[in-house]
Amino acid sequence: MEKKSLDFIEFITSRKSTRNFIFEEIKKETLENILECGRWAPSGLNNQPWRVCVAEHPLLKKMLADTTEYGGILESAYYNLVIFLELDKTYNRVKDLQAIGAFMENILLGAHALGLGAVWIGEILNNKEKVNEIFKLSADKYELMGVIALGKIDKQMEAKKEKERTRRFLDDFVEWY
Amino acid sequence: MEKKSLDFIEFITSRKSTRNFIFEEIKKETLENILECGRWAPSGLNNQPWRVCVAEHPLLKKMLADTTEYGGILESAYYNLVIFLELDKTYNRVKDLQAIGAFMENILLGAHALGLGAVWIGEILNNKEKVNEIFKLSADKYELMGVIALGKIDKQMEAKKEKERTRRFLDDFVEWY
Repeated sequence: MEKKSLDFIEFITSRKSTRNFIFEEIKKETLENILECGRWAPSGLNNQPWRVCVAEHPLLKKMLADTTEYGGILESAYYNLVIFLELDKTYNRVKDLQAIGAFMENILLGAHALGLGAVWIGEILNNKEKVNEIFKLSADKYELMGVIALGKIDKQMEAKKEKERTRRFLDDFVEWY
Repeated sequence: MEKKSLDFIEFITSRKSTRNFIFEEIKKETLENILECGRWAPSGLNNQPWRVCVAEHPLLKKMLADTTEYGGILESAYYNLVIFLELDKTYNRVKDLQAIGAFMENILLGAHALGLGAVWIGEILNNKEKVNEIFKLSADKYELMGVIALGKIDKQMEAKKEKERTRRFLDDFVEWY
């Protein structure tokens, strides 16, 4: 395999969740580069049914933190990317949710590309009505899909709390015909 | 931005669908590298609710091709990756479908990493029962999520049929707080 190809495969497979952040400014332009990765995600009929509310203000992050068990992570991250499904743009429930998954993964990979840490928080969906209220978004128009907490990696804490990354082996989920 | 970071961002944002393939063998080991990218996708509670049936045999690809308007693409691709949701592993419909989206996007990026072409076919969901029958998979256990057609890119045909890639601008879907 070519060196460059190998680098790219290694890049994708080495992405992992970061839950410990150092509070340090991340410039808007840096985050825009990461969001560009989401922007180019695939979606059915290219409908791009996503909306992102970027929370940088500490008070806003505190309000979000209060809606989830993982509030500490949201507060310590520099940005909270609050991702909604824009219901006016949807056309097929399965495909729209898959598109959001591809969009969020591209954002996680974008953070990884820049050496930043990120984690996908899904548990916040238990309080999705409250999150809509925080942003004054009607639940008829926008459905919460998840939050990505993003910030500079606290490498020391991450090393300390490191758990083995586990996945099913290919043989367990792939069949060849 | 560091050169390597820039390369990775450019890698993610430059991925696009390939619909024209040259029929040429792609080794199983190569596809395994691509599937590894899917393997490391994130999922809620790390439930990894995916299953892939890899169709390489021409007769099988023909049967799949007969279930979709895009049959020509499936037949001309070297592999058809038929992706199912393993219902016994699911726990939350929204998060499970998002995980499948992340999984499929990682596979598309894996193909891109190796300079191969791929396209996500969602329209086949209109005939999902037939696809289950082809693989003798019970619909109570496995739900079709989509097919990825994968093969060597026919660069000449792709250039000829090239359409402008379009996406909403960041300003259209991002709000800053």
